[in-house]
Amino acid sequence: MESNRVWIRDVAPRDGFQIEPQFVPLDVKVETINALAKAGVPSIEATSFVHPKAVPQMADAAEVMTRIERYPGTTYAVLVPNLVGAKRALECNPDQINLVVSASESHNRANLNRETFETLDGFRDIASLIRGSGVDLHGGIATSFGCPFEGSVPVERVLRVVERYLELGVTAVGLADTTGMANPRQVQEIVEAVQKRWPDLEVHLHFHNTRGMGLANVFAGYLSGIRHFDASLGGIGGCPFAPGATGNICTEDTVHMLHEMGIETQINLDALISAAKRLEKQLGHSLPGQVMKAGKTSDLHPLPSAMQYEKTE
Amino acid sequence: MESNRVWIRDVAPRDGFQIEPQFVPLDVKVETINALAKAGVPSIEATSFVHPKAVPQMADAAEVMTRIERYPGTTYAVLVPNLVGAKRALECNPDQINLVVSASESHNRANLNRETFETLDGFRDIASLIRGSGVDLHGGIATSFGCPFEGSVPVERVLRVVERYLELGVTAVGLADTTGMANPRQVQEIVEAVQKRWPDLEVHLHFHNTRGMGLANVFAGYLSGIRHFDASLGGIGGCPFAPGATGNICTEDTVHMLHEMGIETQINLDALISAAKRLEKQLGHSLPGQVMKAGKTSDLHPLPSAMQYEKTE
Repeated sequence: MESNRVWIRDVAPRDGFQIEPQFVPLDVKVETINALAKAGVPSIEATSFVHPKAVPQMADAAEVMTRIERYPGTTYAVLVPNLVGAKRALECNPDQINLVVSASESHNRANLNRETFETLDGFRDIASLIRGSGVDLHGGIATSFGCPFEGSVPVERVLRVVERYLELGVTAVGLADTTGMANPRQVQEIVEAVQKRWPDLEVHLHFHNTRGMGLANVFAGYLSGIRHFDASLGGIGGCPFAPGATGNICTEDTVHMLHEMGIETQINLDALISAAKRLEKQLGHSLPGQVMKAGKTSDLHPLPSAMQYEKTE
Repeated sequence: MESNRVWIRDVAPRDGFQIEPQFVPLDVKVETINALAKAGVPSIEATSFVHPKAVPQMADAAEVMTRIERYPGTTYAVLVPNLVGAKRALECNPDQINLVVSASESHNRANLNRETFETLDGFRDIASLIRGSGVDLHGGIATSFGCPFEGSVPVERVLRVVERYLELGVTAVGLADTTGMANPRQVQEIVEAVQKRWPDLEVHLHFHNTRGMGLANVFAGYLSGIRHFDASLGGIGGCPFAPGATGNICTEDTVHMLHEMGIETQINLDALISAAKRLEKQLGHSLPGQVMKAGKTSDLHPLPSAMQYEKTE
């Protein structure tokens, strides 16, 4: 029987902050990451060691990693696009380094200005550098469920990228729905294709809620046996190269659904909702998260007027 | 094997408009209903024959039913709370009359000022009136998945309400998640409990997206064999007696997901999106629908800059 525990990786500090129109102050970044860890989030993608010219919001990556508290129960992951970034990252003592390549050629070109398999070839030096360092290496695959420029992406191509990642020695692979194109049936099909070929591989799913299907896709992935999901505090996020994309799935909405379903996350949902509300004030605009506005299902409301009737049964 | 076809009932003209802060002009109501029918929506809950003092937005119920065009492929349903409303409704030639009672005592008190089973007793006269008229009678059960005042509602209580509806001669029963408290696991449990007792009963599901779980619940219901869902154009709606509630699940987001999953609805999604955009302008505020903002998954974007690379595979 599969485990009833789900592991959430919060990617707000990376996938969320990178697309904020105003520069997010270092203090807010550090406070958000610490709040997530304190709430019991088991993994946080804390920053990205990209070139500051490519993603100005991530210019303080090293400072973020130096300033945050390290909670013992939390895995601190960072995104790395190339060897220079990997070297910078390793100096900051992350627990995990995440690579990312797009399954679709045009999205990879737009994002990294290289071909997909050329990018994967370039990851060999990073893998060599990390091997033996004690840092965990994960491989992310953007546009696994569709590309905003090309449309559908063949499952076989996603499988070929997974294969290349495994040759590099990654311990987990993340299938990312970068611009919110995945649907529940497709999630089950792609997950099952990966599981059929690599039954023991740890697969992470990364969804965006662009078209409202985010939590439906989480449920679909869960039914297929996936226990690792990326999500973003308050639902912030998007993709700078994907026109029209709104946020990642919202961490507290995801955790709320899982808890309501009786699934364990080891996360303090109330602390998460408080963190989302504080972040909303700090960012100065409304966030897409829904539980932070509507409250939890278990938050009961007083009866309207002065009526006092017996409870049902 | 179960059918791959899903039937959507759009409830925007009733569940949506009833909670709009500004009175929705008759012309907008009629135009919306006609647009839904023209887009191929197989069923529309067009209005409610409640007392105008209780729900001022529905004061023009008779005019709405008189003014709309009747598309042959569309079932025109109306909500009716009592015998007076049923008599008014029958004069307007609806195809279907929907009754509604809350499974939870306190919500029914707040909504109808009577006890749940007292309300069901009162429906006997309506059922007698309708019998033989050729009008289809449906029974809706509000707070089937939880009550904002009481919390969880025993499944056994929902089953007892279903039983009473069947004694009244309804041809279908609707389980409504009035304030967005349902989760996918619960949907499957309640649906399966109903199906176990009445395997041939036509069950409709009515979800709100209050906490982001709306489409996950649709997927769960579909997996359990449900083929009838209520949804609301643009995602408008809520419940006047449920504090904090936002909209119903969005019709075009639901149809979009179903189509992406290869499920047939016989609805023209582009026409639906156009209707939602027009309604947004007419109502004068932003609607919760996400596909109307992000576009369909199949709407591709031009490559950024002048790059022109080969398509993936």
